[in-house]
Amino acid sequence: MEYELILKNISRFIDLNPEEENFYTSLLVKRIIGKKDFLMRPGEIIKNEYFIVKGCLKVYTIDSKGVEHISMFAISDWWTGDLSSFLTEQPTKYYIQALEETEILQLSKENSEVLFEKIPKFERFYRILYQRSLISYINRSDQNISVSAEDRYLYFTQKYPSLLNRVSQKDIASYIGVTPEFLSLLRKKMSTR
Amino acid sequence: MEYELILKNISRFIDLNPEEENFYTSLLVKRIIGKKDFLMRPGEIIKNEYFIVKGCLKVYTIDSKGVEHISMFAISDWWTGDLSSFLTEQPTKYYIQALEETEILQLSKENSEVLFEKIPKFERFYRILYQRSLISYINRSDQNISVSAEDRYLYFTQKYPSLLNRVSQKDIASYIGVTPEFLSLLRKKMSTR
Repeated sequence: MEYELILKNISRFIDLNPEEENFYTSLLVKRIIGKKDFLMRPGEIIKNEYFIVKGCLKVYTIDSKGVEHISMFAISDWWTGDLSSFLTEQPTKYYIQALEETEILQLSKENSEVLFEKIPKFERFYRILYQRSLISYINRSDQNISVSAEDRYLYFTQKYPSLLNRVSQKDIASYIGVTPEFLSLLRKKMSTR
Repeated sequence: MEYELILKNISRFIDLNPEEENFYTSLLVKRIIGKKDFLMRPGEIIKNEYFIVKGCLKVYTIDSKGVEHISMFAISDWWTGDLSSFLTEQPTKYYIQALEETEILQLSKENSEVLFEKIPKFERFYRILYQRSLISYINRSDQNISVSAEDRYLYFTQKYPSLLNRVSQKDIASYIGVTPEFLSLLRKKMSTR
């Protein structure tokens, strides 16, 4: 069933009856993003939240020197988007690009408002979802300041075990904030221990 | 009225009737943290969330080289704590120290569960609160990677206008991730433009 994964994701935090499940899934729009296609580019105002059914996307910015900085990889059973643009209606700074053909379900801002009104327990779902994302961002933000590149790489391998062979070394290096050359040296050093 | 500020903070996102206000404030505990005293130290399991009525606290970690990294300053009308320790019951990595005598209101984990049960619209309050914190953390985390020290300093002055003369240059430098000497040079350079 095409909504199985998202309903299972929701059921981690709240219980929906079949009628609520039907109402919720009726608000979702299914999309396929081709490999290397963009779900989002800087300058756009983001009007949806996205759940990844299958595939992998990278979320990144490009700085004034043209250097790419990967904020996250979004994989199956994860949520992605740009909460800031979604809420404030300011243009996004992010690129979100599919690294593989990716299947998503999107919920628009209008529909998320309808959802909160009709099924208020979704407030609880998002309260817990944002709480957990917040913890993950706080950990990452502190990590960038005070943790070594080696530990950041180990953390990457633990956080995204399914991605080690699906994402390029260049992208992994960008995510942990080092050059590909440095990552290559690091991996050699780690493998000879 | 001692609960005026916190009730105004809550009312930004949800409406409470007088009975709900009374129930909510009955769950809060008032505390005074003396200047330089600690609200939290590494190793403790954090069982409360904190609202700052008056004063200023700094939230920081100390890395393996003994260097202090300031994650945030918590001032009047802000919430602070360690959400990760609060939720997972793992020991905190943070110090939270009062830079001035500080008055807080704390809500325990047990009481926050009672609150969600008795007044479910607090799910909405926390949903929106966490959503906004998440945006602020995402911005900060991207900033540390891709924004110059000068821009981080300007951002600090905009985010915390009331703190410029209350927090030491050393602490401001730690927050923006540079040495005090570098911050001093930066300020000179910026003032001569």
